[in-house]
Amino acid sequence: MLVVMSNTATKADIDRVCETIRTMGYTPVAMPGSSRTTVGLIGNDRRVDSSLVAELPGVAQVIHVSNLYKQVSREWKSDGTIVTIAPGVSFGGAAVPVIAGPCSVESEAQILEAARGVKAAGAVALRGGAFKPRSSPYSFQGMGKQGLELLALAKRETGLAIVTEAMDDEGAHLVAEVADLIQIGARNMQNYSLLKTVGRIGKPVLLKRGMAATIEDLLLSAEYILSEGNQQVILCERGLRSFDATARNLFDLTAIPVVHGLSHLPIVADPSHGTGRRDKVTPMARAAVAAGADGLIVEVHPHPERALSDGAQSLTLDQFTELMRQLRRVAEAVDRQVSGTPAGAA
Amino acid sequence: MLVVMSNTATKADIDRVCETIRTMGYTPVAMPGSSRTTVGLIGNDRRVDSSLVAELPGVAQVIHVSNLYKQVSREWKSDGTIVTIAPGVSFGGAAVPVIAGPCSVESEAQILEAARGVKAAGAVALRGGAFKPRSSPYSFQGMGKQGLELLALAKRETGLAIVTEAMDDEGAHLVAEVADLIQIGARNMQNYSLLKTVGRIGKPVLLKRGMAATIEDLLLSAEYILSEGNQQVILCERGLRSFDATARNLFDLTAIPVVHGLSHLPIVADPSHGTGRRDKVTPMARAAVAAGADGLIVEVHPHPERALSDGAQSLTLDQFTELMRQLRRVAEAVDRQVSGTPAGAA
Amino acid sequence: MLVVMSNTATKADIDRVCETIRTMGYTPVAMPGSSRTTVGLIGNDRRVDSSLVAELPGVAQVIHVSNLYKQVSREWKSDGTIVTIAPGVSFGGAAVPVIAGPCSVESEAQILEAARGVKAAGAVALRGGAFKPRSSPYSFQGMGKQGLELLALAKRETGLAIVTEAMDDEGAHLVAEVADLIQIGARNMQNYSLLKTVGRIGKPVLLKRGMAATIEDLLLSAEYILSEGNQQVILCERGLRSFDATARNLFDLTAIPVVHGLSHLPIVADPSHGTGRRDKVTPMARAAVAAGADGLIVEVHPHPERALSDGAQSLTLDQFTELMRQLRRVAEAVDRQVSGTPAGAA
Amino acid sequence: MLVVMSNTATKADIDRVCETIRTMGYTPVAMPGSSRTTVGLIGNDRRVDSSLVAELPGVAQVIHVSNLYKQVSREWKSDGTIVTIAPGVSFGGAAVPVIAGPCSVESEAQILEAARGVKAAGAVALRGGAFKPRSSPYSFQGMGKQGLELLALAKRETGLAIVTEAMDDEGAHLVAEVADLIQIGARNMQNYSLLKTVGRIGKPVLLKRGMAATIEDLLLSAEYILSEGNQQVILCERGLRSFDATARNLFDLTAIPVVHGLSHLPIVADPSHGTGRRDKVTPMARAAVAAGADGLIVEVHPHPERALSDGAQSLTLDQFTELMRQLRRVAEAVDRQVSGTPAGAA
Repeated sequence: MLVVMSNTATKADIDRVCETIRTMGYTPVAMPGSSRTTVGLIGNDRRVDSSLVAELPGVAQVIHVSNLYKQVSREWKSDGTIVTIAPGVSFGGAAVPVIAGPCSVESEAQILEAARGVKAAGAVALRGGAFKPRSSPYSFQGMGKQGLELLALAKRETGLAIVTEAMDDEGAHLVAEVADLIQIGARNMQNYSLLKTVGRIGKPVLLKRGMAATIEDLLLSAEYILSEGNQQVILCERGLRSFDATARNLFDLTAIPVVHGLSHLPIVADPSHGTGRRDKVTPMARAAVAAGADGLIVEVHPHPERALSDGAQSLTLDQFTELMRQLRRVAEAVDRQVSGTPAGAA
Repeated sequence: MLVVMSNTATKADIDRVCETIRTMGYTPVAMPGSSRTTVGLIGNDRRVDSSLVAELPGVAQVIHVSNLYKQVSREWKSDGTIVTIAPGVSFGGAAVPVIAGPCSVESEAQILEAARGVKAAGAVALRGGAFKPRSSPYSFQGMGKQGLELLALAKRETGLAIVTEAMDDEGAHLVAEVADLIQIGARNMQNYSLLKTVGRIGKPVLLKRGMAATIEDLLLSAEYILSEGNQQVILCERGLRSFDATARNLFDLTAIPVVHGLSHLPIVADPSHGTGRRDKVTPMARAAVAAGADGLIVEVHPHPERALSDGAQSLTLDQFTELMRQLRRVAEAVDRQVSGTPAGAA
Repeated sequence: MLVVMSNTATKADIDRVCETIRTMGYTPVAMPGSSRTTVGLIGNDRRVDSSLVAELPGVAQVIHVSNLYKQVSREWKSDGTIVTIAPGVSFGGAAVPVIAGPCSVESEAQILEAARGVKAAGAVALRGGAFKPRSSPYSFQGMGKQGLELLALAKRETGLAIVTEAMDDEGAHLVAEVADLIQIGARNMQNYSLLKTVGRIGKPVLLKRGMAATIEDLLLSAEYILSEGNQQVILCERGLRSFDATARNLFDLTAIPVVHGLSHLPIVADPSHGTGRRDKVTPMARAAVAAGADGLIVEVHPHPERALSDGAQSLTLDQFTELMRQLRRVAEAVDRQVSGTPAGAA
Repeated sequence: MLVVMSNTATKADIDRVCETIRTMGYTPVAMPGSSRTTVGLIGNDRRVDSSLVAELPGVAQVIHVSNLYKQVSREWKSDGTIVTIAPGVSFGGAAVPVIAGPCSVESEAQILEAARGVKAAGAVALRGGAFKPRSSPYSFQGMGKQGLELLALAKRETGLAIVTEAMDDEGAHLVAEVADLIQIGARNMQNYSLLKTVGRIGKPVLLKRGMAATIEDLLLSAEYILSEGNQQVILCERGLRSFDATARNLFDLTAIPVVHGLSHLPIVADPSHGTGRRDKVTPMARAAVAAGADGLIVEVHPHPERALSDGAQSLTLDQFTELMRQLRRVAEAVDRQVSGTPAGAA
């Protein structure tokens, strides 16, 4: 903690700050500048509660220099964490696995057609919501348990790993029976009860960044999961709230190298929510891989025009096949490989 | 739903859009302009899934004209709703009740001193967190059940109504036993499971606006509660995420008249979180009342410098007494009254 | 400047930082914490260029503690500045002068009707654009010099002070011949050539906050004017860009007490642009005065439905008369007075 | 224009809207829905001033369906525009030219070393500011005319095209004598006087997106230049203001495919300002090319640690050489080529 004094602070003001810091059990260091003095504090390794000094006379500003997060930090663990959600499906290494599938599980026919299609194109995991967080209570809320059963069926049929969202504690336990990777959606990024629950369940977690979350917020939410003993966390950039309605969200790809600098956890990108528009998904998927994404999650629907949710941002199977073709080239150009072999390739 | 065609759309494109609308069970109306045609749709009263037409050739844009929310709308109920949380404590009428108290319940001594102090100054309800959502898992998380018991004690001692936050389904039931008004925090504004739970519990709910929530998002979240049969919802503006770190949040007071125009629900303001800085709370509390707020919620701590959370934005009891004095004058100037009689007043 | 070291920084890293600071002519102070070391710098009173150290091995972060602005700061001049734009029309004291008038000067009849009307209601200055910055080159761009002549006429007829915008260097000199207060619009807040020009002209300047400007940005832009020797600057909050299209802008009233804390310059509020919607102007004008605004600038048009620009946010004369009536009450409630006597009042 | 009626609107309200539209010279079409009526307008090809109807009784919302811009639109000109700034240096085709150089021209030695270095690495144009817009009046403001002379010298020595910024009308004419591409900075994106001036000068213009500008704002500003008869405009994405201080700006790469959809103008990306941090420039430059950028502009300084401005985001020559190597691979992966042959390549 650093206490910046006003340039009108008196010596008595500075002494009072130093004394208060001593009362808190730390050693103050006053550093006079030509126009103002800064008082440092020796001995802290966590954020000290600054309210004791923030409002003392003559104090202009209090600055914290320690991070609030710990276990997620690259300073804590310098090697990148590799999260393996199923045999051969790992995030955080040289491979760039692609998760694909519809926004919602809608029927057996739909999910099986989607699963077979995305597998043929090279996806290694199937996404599909059984429990859906929707802004309106009148929108389709997902098939629930029945949706989970259909995902289990799709897994048996195709061998794809399963990625699906949990919205509450009870749902998390249900989801955990089927999912290889439990998704926490953007709206629940700071639902700390849920974070603790999936931390305790211990299965890999896909933690999506909230619509107005800083990178620090995202890492702190991940810290909730790690602090319960679960290190298997994959972060996900999926676009931020923006003043420009041209795209649905503002896709913050810089988050990828920023996270790589601050944390050892892998980070994937969701260009479907990131852009909200089908025709922007492919260029932005390419961009995400070029920026260093450790994987992608893409909405694909065999018949987007009939989708019960997010149709406008879902790719057709043909479009997804083409996206995968393009991704392979971009991945190679950054010395990585899109995992999964497309059907027909030798 | 309105479908705006590109100015390069052909007659065939327009016909295809009209045909698709017919397939969906509606009647299309093509309106040629000098540079482009717009196709309207007769017969919808809810948002039609637009993905069927959004991606047809020649379509430039799809515009929805219906609101997604219904029961919260002033079109649905033109008279303002009055939410009574305890005898004589009503939000939405001419009175402007003030809720005050510490961020967290910390001890019996602290909460009783706070309760007596805010009551003496004219507050009619006591706030205080027993379950605290904190960005970091290492920050103080609240006293839990014991905190609720202390709130019940403070109620017995002072007669103040109790406002406290629920963070999950289990907690909501615990909180409901003590609280007169169950708070849903900004981070949980789109925790739909929790919204449904408090909707079913049926007690009055204080729903705080999320940090990047539009007014429509806020109203849709309230709709989740109303759609479970609970009309007793008070909205709360508490500041938005901002690019300017000068204040903790960007306090959007325009939300007050905007909500009054769109919805029959009352809306209160939280100048403590809205500004995050003690010395800005009083002017912004005055501004909120002048803008038409139906109440206020203010952080007050008998000893802010010892607070376990949010000390920097908490008022002392003396500062709160002065705030109340100023509020009474501003409330009168807009033909309203701060409810509650200050100690010593006749 | 404070240099926060990574918790993996070696002693050699810390020594290198200290050595570099010495090379720059300052004295380093290393403050070891339990998990990381911070290096302070003694002797700076302005922002040191930090790039020399920011990228050295082991450096996690560089923090600046000095403000970039100087003459606008309340640390530089503790008494509030009073800017007098015409006899009896002063901003920054106990009075709350109101500037009112149409977005654009459109004709002699329109500007005279507006001027007489707003004067009768109690405004002390007339606003009206002769040069208009419009997003589209095809929108009405203002009447130019002829508009200035009509403003001069309105001044002669009513005695109102004149407030009008300058968009470029040449226009600033023309505007200065007529205006008592030269407005710099939000889009030009960082047009430094223009800021220097109006600084040199020496007439009072109304500096509007840019749509995404921090308070520090605003103060730095004001500093450009003061650094040319012109202290007569009035700041103006007029709403920020927002993700919520419900209102045109996000009106940041907290800027008022924040500016009062940081700077000696007066700040007025523009609820017309701040909200963009006629029916929100009056409540937010009240809120601005309650928050401590040193004046208001309000769009009023005798016939808003025929306005060539900004009709949807302009008040009618009747609405403005009512607004002034309400403002007088709110101003009194915060111990201030709306200057100007309404017609018919004794 | 579409007028959405409230669901409480009466027949008289609807008739009044229709009548008003007729008065404006258009034909109204009323489209009753089950809960509300929308009134369309036949015959408009530009944005009609909506204030006449927006405030009529019973009107809930007015929606505009025409764009405000015209000549910049892809609807106006379907083929992409190729802007050639110097022989062999074209933006908008298959090539991806790279502009590189220091933030500011600082000395003959500095600019020549930079020019030779970036040319050797494959850049085809040299950037360097002679006139610098700086937030603080006390920061280095550029060398002015002398800086322009040094850029002219660097051009003679290396053959690189020159890109430099103009801040005002007078400066624009000076800059035009030396620059092959006149840069309009983000802060001046809506300085309409300056836009008209560079429109009339007729040289190619690099128009940077403002910090809170929507894509529509950017295109409208470009329209100012085109409406003066100058079609040679290159747009530039350089990062938006953000609530997250982790990076300097929020780099909106989705703007690239969005602009490609709406406009025929080429768009380049500036990963240096877009991220503000040296170690993020290379991954985000790769991402920009993968997203489809028509070129890049990158800050490179032979000795960033001595730079007078923006040192923290400038690459060294070695880092830039490596960036170019990586870009070539990514460009190939999206079927494009980084123009310019690196030294030593055959």
